[in-house]
Amino acid sequence: MTTLSTTTTHTLLDAVRAGVRVVDLGRTLTVGMPQSPNHPAYWHALPRRHGDMVRVDGGSAANDMISMGTHVGTHIDALSHVSQDGKLYGDLDVADALTGGRYEELGAHTIAPMVRRGVLLDVPATLGVDRLDAGYEISVVDLERTVERQATAIEPGDVALVRSGWGQHFDSGDKASFVGHDSGVPGVGAAGAQWLVDQGVHATGADTIAYECLPPGAGHATLPAHRVLLVENGVYIIETMNLEELAADALHEFVFVLSPLALYGATGSPVRPLAVVSGE
Amino acid sequence: MTTLSTTTTHTLLDAVRAGVRVVDLGRTLTVGMPQSPNHPAYWHALPRRHGDMVRVDGGSAANDMISMGTHVGTHIDALSHVSQDGKLYGDLDVADALTGGRYEELGAHTIAPMVRRGVLLDVPATLGVDRLDAGYEISVVDLERTVERQATAIEPGDVALVRSGWGQHFDSGDKASFVGHDSGVPGVGAAGAQWLVDQGVHATGADTIAYECLPPGAGHATLPAHRVLLVENGVYIIETMNLEELAADALHEFVFVLSPLALYGATGSPVRPLAVVSGE
Amino acid sequence: MTTLSTTTTHTLLDAVRAGVRVVDLGRTLTVGMPQSPNHPAYWHALPRRHGDMVRVDGGSAANDMISMGTHVGTHIDALSHVSQDGKLYGDLDVADALTGGRYEELGAHTIAPMVRRGVLLDVPATLGVDRLDAGYEISVVDLERTVERQATAIEPGDVALVRSGWGQHFDSGDKASFVGHDSGVPGVGAAGAQWLVDQGVHATGADTIAYECLPPGAGHATLPAHRVLLVENGVYIIETMNLEELAADALHEFVFVLSPLALYGATGSPVRPLAVVSGE
Amino acid sequence: MTTLSTTTTHTLLDAVRAGVRVVDLGRTLTVGMPQSPNHPAYWHALPRRHGDMVRVDGGSAANDMISMGTHVGTHIDALSHVSQDGKLYGDLDVADALTGGRYEELGAHTIAPMVRRGVLLDVPATLGVDRLDAGYEISVVDLERTVERQATAIEPGDVALVRSGWGQHFDSGDKASFVGHDSGVPGVGAAGAQWLVDQGVHATGADTIAYECLPPGAGHATLPAHRVLLVENGVYIIETMNLEELAADALHEFVFVLSPLALYGATGSPVRPLAVVSGE
Repeated sequence: MTTLSTTTTHTLLDAVRAGVRVVDLGRTLTVGMPQSPNHPAYWHALPRRHGDMVRVDGGSAANDMISMGTHVGTHIDALSHVSQDGKLYGDLDVADALTGGRYEELGAHTIAPMVRRGVLLDVPATLGVDRLDAGYEISVVDLERTVERQATAIEPGDVALVRSGWGQHFDSGDKASFVGHDSGVPGVGAAGAQWLVDQGVHATGADTIAYECLPPGAGHATLPAHRVLLVENGVYIIETMNLEELAADALHEFVFVLSPLALYGATGSPVRPLAVVSGE
Repeated sequence: MTTLSTTTTHTLLDAVRAGVRVVDLGRTLTVGMPQSPNHPAYWHALPRRHGDMVRVDGGSAANDMISMGTHVGTHIDALSHVSQDGKLYGDLDVADALTGGRYEELGAHTIAPMVRRGVLLDVPATLGVDRLDAGYEISVVDLERTVERQATAIEPGDVALVRSGWGQHFDSGDKASFVGHDSGVPGVGAAGAQWLVDQGVHATGADTIAYECLPPGAGHATLPAHRVLLVENGVYIIETMNLEELAADALHEFVFVLSPLALYGATGSPVRPLAVVSGE
Repeated sequence: MTTLSTTTTHTLLDAVRAGVRVVDLGRTLTVGMPQSPNHPAYWHALPRRHGDMVRVDGGSAANDMISMGTHVGTHIDALSHVSQDGKLYGDLDVADALTGGRYEELGAHTIAPMVRRGVLLDVPATLGVDRLDAGYEISVVDLERTVERQATAIEPGDVALVRSGWGQHFDSGDKASFVGHDSGVPGVGAAGAQWLVDQGVHATGADTIAYECLPPGAGHATLPAHRVLLVENGVYIIETMNLEELAADALHEFVFVLSPLALYGATGSPVRPLAVVSGE
Repeated sequence: MTTLSTTTTHTLLDAVRAGVRVVDLGRTLTVGMPQSPNHPAYWHALPRRHGDMVRVDGGSAANDMISMGTHVGTHIDALSHVSQDGKLYGDLDVADALTGGRYEELGAHTIAPMVRRGVLLDVPATLGVDRLDAGYEISVVDLERTVERQATAIEPGDVALVRSGWGQHFDSGDKASFVGHDSGVPGVGAAGAQWLVDQGVHATGADTIAYECLPPGAGHATLPAHRVLLVENGVYIIETMNLEELAADALHEFVFVLSPLALYGATGSPVRPLAVVSGE
């Protein structure tokens, strides 16, 4: 039998039993949803539907077949995703990270599940707009003003979610704008990424397809924030999040929960992150 | 700015900041892992590795291609997974649940993320064995003795995880035993499932491939617990969990977290559930 | 030992031994190639490359992982592909064609391999243009003038390949034009399809994405030629062919060879059809 | 208009018009068919069935989703499939063959379609048995006696199909025997492969899973015939063929037709090869 004391283990459980509100920060995966053309699209079919094969007792099971990349829908980048000059995070040579053709080192299976303080950085609210302009680079001043306005200083180990409002294009089904190949996409650049690193964040997310500020027409030619975050500092990146409900209800602090699939040797994982707060 | 009071939203966050231990209840997904042959096997490859295409600035991205069923690895069954006599949960006709060839009703995207009290029912510990015998049906008495021994009465809305010890075969790589086609697999039957329903569980999981008690040689010919849980009572089932660490440390009560991928119209989702307790 | 006489079996072989020219009518399958967005895109990755796992004797094998629809790249439509008012070819009810969730009746596995006379109908050459205009409907008069000009009357059992020149957009990498969502695509309509049926063709192909004449902006809203050919007359359709080499060399008559993958219960198959003629 | 003379191009066509018999040498692809566990299994589902989405005019289209390896079902090995000591055929370094993460050199897209003389080597008929024993290595003497008995000397450029009778296990659904992991599989070894090379074959096929003689329990630990054929001599290998009909009708010489999918950069392709002879 357990010999752990109630006080050691039950504080969290008591808080949950008192009532929590769970805000879904993930996107529904549908065939045809907006995603980067660089990755295998999400596809789904039912090999078996109810009625295709009915057992003698009248029971029937339906099942699925899925194919996809790991950087589609709401997802997290593993540290094996991006390299610079042949090196991954920790100065690891890219060849040394591979075993049997998969990234045994720094692969998606090495991302520990997260139950941490999360902070929403609602930049459009700070700037007094519904959403940022296409291609707008979120500055360090924007980030500083936002934490000050919200009174939510970032603490070491936090997960910082940078809202641009661009997720509205996902909601409205405007794929071209959400992907932003021609229009561009707002986001942080190298400077903003470094500021987040300086605050000690464990991970950072955004409501956009690539987290980065993408200038109009430039595509994903260079990804400076990925370099600063993933390669230089080992900070995970979460993309294509739904941050609209948090913003609408001004939920700026919460318990952030993210549990990636332990895909051995992969460079990322689809996820459905949660923001959880006490109350109903 | 937020007008929610700190006391309303911060109790949970304070509990997390005081320190939590996160126990991983999911299995690593690897090519060739044990799974049911009725579902598309998990496969993974890297279309692009570092070095395949290096940008002019020295940056390089690697990515993935995945194909799989949704009932492989650790996963949750949606209520659309099993029907009886042409009906899904809530007496819904199977044809009416389909829209455009997917289960819009009761599909995986309708499973709300779970942040709830979880209870481990460590049946082998109650019976004084390392793991249950192949084909052993966990009785109602076994379940009652277990909650009594653990002093962990199940409450309405809980998630009950029924340990058989069979997950040791997953750990050891004994695929034939884990799948149990010839040997059988221990688990609850219709009676045990009904008892769990009577306690008011929201979901229930196990460390086996199909949750059910599978007699030797019988395969998945009938699935009575699935009928009782999914079809008759709308109780979700989680399979192929890793419950060994919880048992080793006698963690019988915890915050259970499960956030399925919102796979539109699917019959299940791979998941990585967590047990979270206060303390390090 | 064989008792078949040489004269019975060797005429064809002798013709081949005398020398043949094989013209490839298929497209190379590449990730990102133009295709209909209605079907799962072609994706390919190497789970294992040379060097990932080397045997003690110094040998190493590389392998592949593919996901795709069957109506991508050069492909043939099975008779199970299209229905009208709930009926497939032969007045077969669509529900009756299914067994175990696949089209056992009229599926891709029922398409007999073809070794038949093939005729190229080079319509742009008849009209004196390099390629037909977007959205141009090839008329019965166009078809009649073409067979007359070429002196290649269609005979019962032939395979008729209708060239529009639109495949030049596949060659040039102009995906938007090849798919033609906005611009439209040239092709035969219901009248042209009926004329081909009246000539007794066994199958018919084109160098376009959907065989049909697609008006600008209309997409695949209706597919009258598919109805006439597949549903009403059991004539197979081959799409996204490469007909440029045949046209350039004015090869209007040839042995047409097509050997679809016997995909059990599927609605089509990727193929690499050949035109074969005597000579080098 | 064409200026090629009829005699130049029509000999072959005339032979086809006189009537041909087409023998299917491929296997039907079904979910669950026997295949090597080293490759992604063949899976197929219908994302859309008839009735899921009916157009206003009463038309409806069904379609498919496929995932698979390229070395499943009847398939051909590209020269990029196997290397020895870091080299592919032609002493090409394995790293140099890759471009953008695919085998641009020696990939499946480089296999020219085949319309050639084919010869069946019916070894069980020579040895007076229905099929060879598990693990039996077909000797050079067996091959020599077979061509002599059949009076079908192999000529340079031919495709030689070596029958063992093992395909009977595919027909009967005996997956364990066909795969032969425990039992072994009959086939040629290094000596037989070298003899075929010495005859000048362009390609060679068999009715087994791996072409090779596999000793009982040894699995695919070493593949000497692959080395001799693919790496040292650039001779293609075709596996999992259906050679029973050819043997039953003693068709030992024919036109062999094989048209692999032009899968860019892949290591093989599923195929449906044909044997074609004059006559009905």
